[in-house]
Amino acid sequence: MPDPPRVAIIGVGLIGGSIGLALRQRGLAQEVVGVGRRMASLEKARELGAIDRGTTNLVEGVADADWVIIATPVDSIVDTVTAVASAAPRATITDAGSTKAQICREIKQLPPSEPGRPAPGTHFIGSHPLAGGHRTGPEHARADLLVDRLVLVTPEDNTPPGLVERTKEFWEALGAEVVLLSPEEHDRALAATSHLPHLIAAALASATPEEWLQLTGAGWGDTTRIAAGSPQLWTQIFTQNRAAVLDALRRFEHRLAQFDAALSGGDVPALTLELQEAKRIRDAVGD
Amino acid sequence: MPDPPRVAIIGVGLIGGSIGLALRQRGLAQEVVGVGRRMASLEKARELGAIDRGTTNLVEGVADADWVIIATPVDSIVDTVTAVASAAPRATITDAGSTKAQICREIKQLPPSEPGRPAPGTHFIGSHPLAGGHRTGPEHARADLLVDRLVLVTPEDNTPPGLVERTKEFWEALGAEVVLLSPEEHDRALAATSHLPHLIAAALASATPEEWLQLTGAGWGDTTRIAAGSPQLWTQIFTQNRAAVLDALRRFEHRLAQFDAALSGGDVPALTLELQEAKRIRDAVGD
Repeated sequence: MPDPPRVAIIGVGLIGGSIGLALRQRGLAQEVVGVGRRMASLEKARELGAIDRGTTNLVEGVADADWVIIATPVDSIVDTVTAVASAAPRATITDAGSTKAQICREIKQLPPSEPGRPAPGTHFIGSHPLAGGHRTGPEHARADLLVDRLVLVTPEDNTPPGLVERTKEFWEALGAEVVLLSPEEHDRALAATSHLPHLIAAALASATPEEWLQLTGAGWGDTTRIAAGSPQLWTQIFTQNRAAVLDALRRFEHRLAQFDAALSGGDVPALTLELQEAKRIRDAVGD
Repeated sequence: MPDPPRVAIIGVGLIGGSIGLALRQRGLAQEVVGVGRRMASLEKARELGAIDRGTTNLVEGVADADWVIIATPVDSIVDTVTAVASAAPRATITDAGSTKAQICREIKQLPPSEPGRPAPGTHFIGSHPLAGGHRTGPEHARADLLVDRLVLVTPEDNTPPGLVERTKEFWEALGAEVVLLSPEEHDRALAATSHLPHLIAAALASATPEEWLQLTGAGWGDTTRIAAGSPQLWTQIFTQNRAAVLDALRRFEHRLAQFDAALSGGDVPALTLELQEAKRIRDAVGD
């Protein structure tokens, strides 16, 4: 990027705030404008150094932007892209949502905001930084949140190669490593690696009788940690990626049935083999 | 304890080593003897300060002991108690095993090692420090491993009150908080709070297609972390506590079926309610 671009971040929470902090600390943006619903949050983000200025007015916030990063809950991304494409028709738009297929499909079908303008889909490419967690809000934002983390970028068949390249460079400049995959492939993979774990963690937490909660240790704590995430955000994610999450759930149930059969049947060698296979896969990822 | 006792620790791994370190650093023992199968491990434990001396000969190691702590895999605890009770008939014996009901039941039924001697069960009480994790070995031992952690102590109907009291004081002197419950209650609770989470974490790791492992983030990492534990040790735990683990698994499957129904049926409010209930329970425990 020869001239540092003007960047607007819509939704200055953990992810949006961390992007802003990194852009500003690395001198990668001429200006970072935060767009949000509440001035109090935007003011906090400004005090933390995540944005140069904040506004609750999207049209005003994105007016001069070269880049617009949408870091809002997944259900509002399509409408936000529509509004941004109308207010800033030259801006490159990406997002940070945990689901991609439905969002990218709907954006691709958006008509131009005015006759003669390009359709919003020609300026949009999906992104998903694999960072964050159960803590939310700009107060947990960190300039190094994306350093050495993966950002999944999801071009489609007709995405201009220049848009893919620019977006890759954008995330790499923040210290992240970029992996390209289609929106559908993204959603199938993330169903297994992120959405199913959340469902399982939640079911496990709920299945623990409350009188025994004081007897939980580090294992229960780790295994259920993400169940503390926002029910509203996760309802949106599960609903957007329902088919792939259900597929992943069937695979899990199949494996659980193998454990169940080995344990119920008192088949000690089979149980050890199941645990060895699980350890092999877990060890392949590391801490 | 007016005179600091002589303590023998059988199995100087993470838990045994941490107990030894704490006893020695706090000046709570006249001598800490480590008993193990391999001199190399014992020598390492001695270098780390976890024991004063080590031996592979159990009879010699426990001969002068006032206290014997058995920190071996659960399947060998009963045999070890038998051997200790014969070699050190006056010693107070406890263990650090993750299961209690089968072990305590079998120990209660052990005959005296010689006619006229008290049965081993009169000197034994079960303990389970809720500490440790997927890392094992004396190199991960820490003098503060038990500080502010729970140790579950499992007296039975006929356990002498003095034995309960001594054991409580032993663990409290290491900084732990003691909770008393029956061996059966312990196993039902731990099935839900520790053993089921391990089973679920293992099934989840195994259910993740390997080509997507590079796309895992902190959520998958947390949720599957304990699947890296020893397959051999966990096979023993599951086998010893099979009935209670299967009960806990049924409760989990019931909750998972509720999530499944809400998701499959597209019942958004029901899904949010399930996630809210899970979050409520997870938040009650804290980080």
